[in-house]
Amino acid sequence: MATYTIGVDFGSLSCRAVLVDTKTGKELGEATMEYPHAVMDTVLAASGARLPANYALQDPADYIAALTFVLPAVIKEAGVSPEEVVGIGVDFTCCTMLPVRADGTPLCFEEAFSHDPHAYVKMWKHHAAQPYADRINAVARARGERWLTRAGGAVSSEFMFPKIYQILDEAPAVYDAAYAFMEAGDWITYQLTGTPACAYQFAAYKSQYTLGEGYPTEDFFAAVDERLRHVVRDKLPYPILPQGAPVGRVTGEAAQRFGIAEGTVVAAAAPDAHVAAPALAACRNGDVYAVLGTSACFFVVGERELPVPGICGVQPNGVVPGLFGYEAGLCCLGDHFAYAADKLTSPAYVEEAKARGISMLRLLIEKASLKAPGASGVLALNWWNGNRCILGNSDLSGVFVGMTLGTAPEDLMRALIEATAFGTRNIFENFRACGVEIAGLVVSGGIARKDPFTMQLYADVLNMDIRIAKTSQAPALGSAINGAMAAGVFASYEEASAVMSGVGETVYHPNPAATAVYDKLYAEYKKLHDYFGRGENNVMLTLRQLAAEAGK
Amino acid sequence: MATYTIGVDFGSLSCRAVLVDTKTGKELGEATMEYPHAVMDTVLAASGARLPANYALQDPADYIAALTFVLPAVIKEAGVSPEEVVGIGVDFTCCTMLPVRADGTPLCFEEAFSHDPHAYVKMWKHHAAQPYADRINAVARARGERWLTRAGGAVSSEFMFPKIYQILDEAPAVYDAAYAFMEAGDWITYQLTGTPACAYQFAAYKSQYTLGEGYPTEDFFAAVDERLRHVVRDKLPYPILPQGAPVGRVTGEAAQRFGIAEGTVVAAAAPDAHVAAPALAACRNGDVYAVLGTSACFFVVGERELPVPGICGVQPNGVVPGLFGYEAGLCCLGDHFAYAADKLTSPAYVEEAKARGISMLRLLIEKASLKAPGASGVLALNWWNGNRCILGNSDLSGVFVGMTLGTAPEDLMRALIEATAFGTRNIFENFRACGVEIAGLVVSGGIARKDPFTMQLYADVLNMDIRIAKTSQAPALGSAINGAMAAGVFASYEEASAVMSGVGETVYHPNPAATAVYDKLYAEYKKLHDYFGRGENNVMLTLRQLAAEAGK
Repeated sequence: MATYTIGVDFGSLSCRAVLVDTKTGKELGEATMEYPHAVMDTVLAASGARLPANYALQDPADYIAALTFVLPAVIKEAGVSPEEVVGIGVDFTCCTMLPVRADGTPLCFEEAFSHDPHAYVKMWKHHAAQPYADRINAVARARGERWLTRAGGAVSSEFMFPKIYQILDEAPAVYDAAYAFMEAGDWITYQLTGTPACAYQFAAYKSQYTLGEGYPTEDFFAAVDERLRHVVRDKLPYPILPQGAPVGRVTGEAAQRFGIAEGTVVAAAAPDAHVAAPALAACRNGDVYAVLGTSACFFVVGERELPVPGICGVQPNGVVPGLFGYEAGLCCLGDHFAYAADKLTSPAYVEEAKARGISMLRLLIEKASLKAPGASGVLALNWWNGNRCILGNSDLSGVFVGMTLGTAPEDLMRALIEATAFGTRNIFENFRACGVEIAGLVVSGGIARKDPFTMQLYADVLNMDIRIAKTSQAPALGSAINGAMAAGVFASYEEASAVMSGVGETVYHPNPAATAVYDKLYAEYKKLHDYFGRGENNVMLTLRQLAAEAGK
Repeated sequence: MATYTIGVDFGSLSCRAVLVDTKTGKELGEATMEYPHAVMDTVLAASGARLPANYALQDPADYIAALTFVLPAVIKEAGVSPEEVVGIGVDFTCCTMLPVRADGTPLCFEEAFSHDPHAYVKMWKHHAAQPYADRINAVARARGERWLTRAGGAVSSEFMFPKIYQILDEAPAVYDAAYAFMEAGDWITYQLTGTPACAYQFAAYKSQYTLGEGYPTEDFFAAVDERLRHVVRDKLPYPILPQGAPVGRVTGEAAQRFGIAEGTVVAAAAPDAHVAAPALAACRNGDVYAVLGTSACFFVVGERELPVPGICGVQPNGVVPGLFGYEAGLCCLGDHFAYAADKLTSPAYVEEAKARGISMLRLLIEKASLKAPGASGVLALNWWNGNRCILGNSDLSGVFVGMTLGTAPEDLMRALIEATAFGTRNIFENFRACGVEIAGLVVSGGIARKDPFTMQLYADVLNMDIRIAKTSQAPALGSAINGAMAAGVFASYEEASAVMSGVGETVYHPNPAATAVYDKLYAEYKKLHDYFGRGENNVMLTLRQLAAEAGK
């Protein structure tokens, strides 16, 4: 009998579903829909009111609309019958959260709250809760809270509790009316199954939930703000489910609404980057996978929990059960290359790109690829958007060194590409220095599939083989694997990954001659990294302060 | 009776003459002609043969052609009679030298030598004598030659003796056939007067001639190379004349050839930058003048000779008699701005500049001028063409620090303009720290007259009033003053300068609020300058070496 599963990936702007054959791993169908209201970061659609700075909201009705489209669409495209779909998995950006009633109704669906921004979904990149994060961090540091280490030493404004705290402080009526605050991913599985639950991975990475210990204590929350003392008891009421556990089965109502079969098993939701681990065959100690896009995420699977300074966090059962999931990242990757194409080019190249009908980005990367390693003569620090790992300092900024009157735009582009590779190597060496093994590496994302020059350069700089994901939908495929796990198709993620993972045949091997040159450049990168990044010269902070004062 | 003088300025690509009324300082006429063969740096015109790397030759016939055009033209344009012209002065780039016969005939005019590159004029920027300069420096340092200090600690490949040494070594037949090696400026006064002489300023700055002591000793030259032992006695036979001294009078033959009056007094030639001092009213202790073009020259007039590390040189009677002339410079100024316009811009700005019909340089400077000091958030080191002063290291290269994803091309342009101002301030502070007074400042050159934003920025960064030259021909005007001095029109340069100098009414005053911001940025500039420039981090050298290896 055929056994298919569907993975549904909710991104920042759209939702996509893939339907996968669990016997072959083949992706039989794919469907995508953009959210009608996209991101509300300037105006609240329902009222037309302007939003304050750093807001990023969404309307949960958009998620339902997307799900109503993609589920029947992907089944139709695959040409299978809904009954042959044995499991569904869902992943979501996180912490992307919303206040709901006891029956799961979002507060923003109610007329009384429809004009209140705080009743809507706060996306991961809603940064307006920063003052609340600052307060939480100050208290946690003063008290020496141990869970802070696993969070990489700081609670981000993107996490759950700063967002709840903001609502409590700025919209107490919303706080009081909320039966629960939910991750949007959990809210989706609730809609499908009628059963509320909280996925462990969300709780661990975004709500400071520690396996075996629970959330931070009431004492801690009371020290932050007395009004928060019972926040966990009162506002996070749902059971926590491990990765790939079944939340429940599709209800009759949901089956009708979404065009799927009643009784289909639905897996606990998962974070959109973490869920990709089994899809990228990262299931054993030392496995690493990277998602390279505008920014970059790196996940390392480890047997032991070791203290690693400057990473985003580490959690037991973080990306696959039974192992630790270390997370690290670069806050700017492809954005650097787009920046260079948009700001650092030659009028003559504008003509050339136009004449050839190609993008400036492609032209510059093509020209950069014609040079030998080291030939550009330029070295960069890849900090145009600050440094996430391993310095964790958003006040840092970019550097170029080595320009002459002969330096061409492609030399700067190449230096930026190299710098992101050096930044990656620095993260990997930091892991290794702390005893965390870095062995196999699988890379996914648009740059991985579309830019062989950059991937070869990464292999040379990292001095590692790089396997490229063949799937363009690693998160959705990961969710389909979760669906299969929840439905009991496989006994373990390793087994599931062996059949269903989307790692292709493409492998980049390091070129020893290039690696030898990059070793020298990397040594120079490290020296500049430490000089500007570790307080020896705080010119970047001074420049930011002067710019801020000048902007007044 | 009317007393006019003519100043003739021989530049790298063209020759220009001005005719000036010595009673009013008014420039009554101007004429220019480009050299027919321009610079021969790839092919020798007479033979079509390719030239080796770093060659820069000229044909002295081009100088004669230019002089034959500009002298009658300027007299005609001014509407005066040749007899009313009492003196002629000439300035020339230097060391721009050629081998001649005893009668002054350039060797390259003879058929036997017409295909030998070494028989032609070696321009100041002929850099192929670098190995010979290296040898001279090594021996001079080993022997502790005192004249080395006045040359700024090193004999440049642009100077006279490395060029002669190259000819001796690579073209001994030319060396043997040469009765003398002459600065081209001296050769011009020889053509006009029939009297050979060597201008003191050339000898002092470019041939290591020390007032009262003479050239380096025969012992020294023999230590460099036994064949050079008698180079001064054998190849530099002409008397040395002080600034503004008459070489002689225009001969009948020259009068006919150049359309000027027989008997007109001709002043000793002068270096094209140094000659501008009286034209820019730099005649007293503490006076400073700057010529801002693709690169920048600074001259300081001082009462005393003080050791100042990292300058180009200091000579008694260097720019005006009786005082010391300190020379310093930036090897890249306007070239930085041209670079940014050509390599660091946005495709959208290419459209904008086209739509508005203005150059990219103007567009970027206009946009840069709209921001407040410090607002760009970027700091640069202005070393795209190495550092001449005060580090004297051509292996240094450019730096940008502080870029974010919001950094625009005009922010980089502004950082470059600021960096050249910081480099200038650094030179001035170095002088002051050594006890050399820096008081009045007059600036000439295209940037001075045409770019008020940059000049205001310089006033703010330097925290000094800046007076702008009204003459666009400071060197030619300086030569006209030399002509007047040689003809006895004035008793002193100070007196001549009071009447004839070309300093206008335009003065830029520093804005204290801007200066306060720039003081902070300058402190950061100094820190980076010392870090990258004084051996703490030799990344720039490493990058050059890697680029050179990659280019193999």
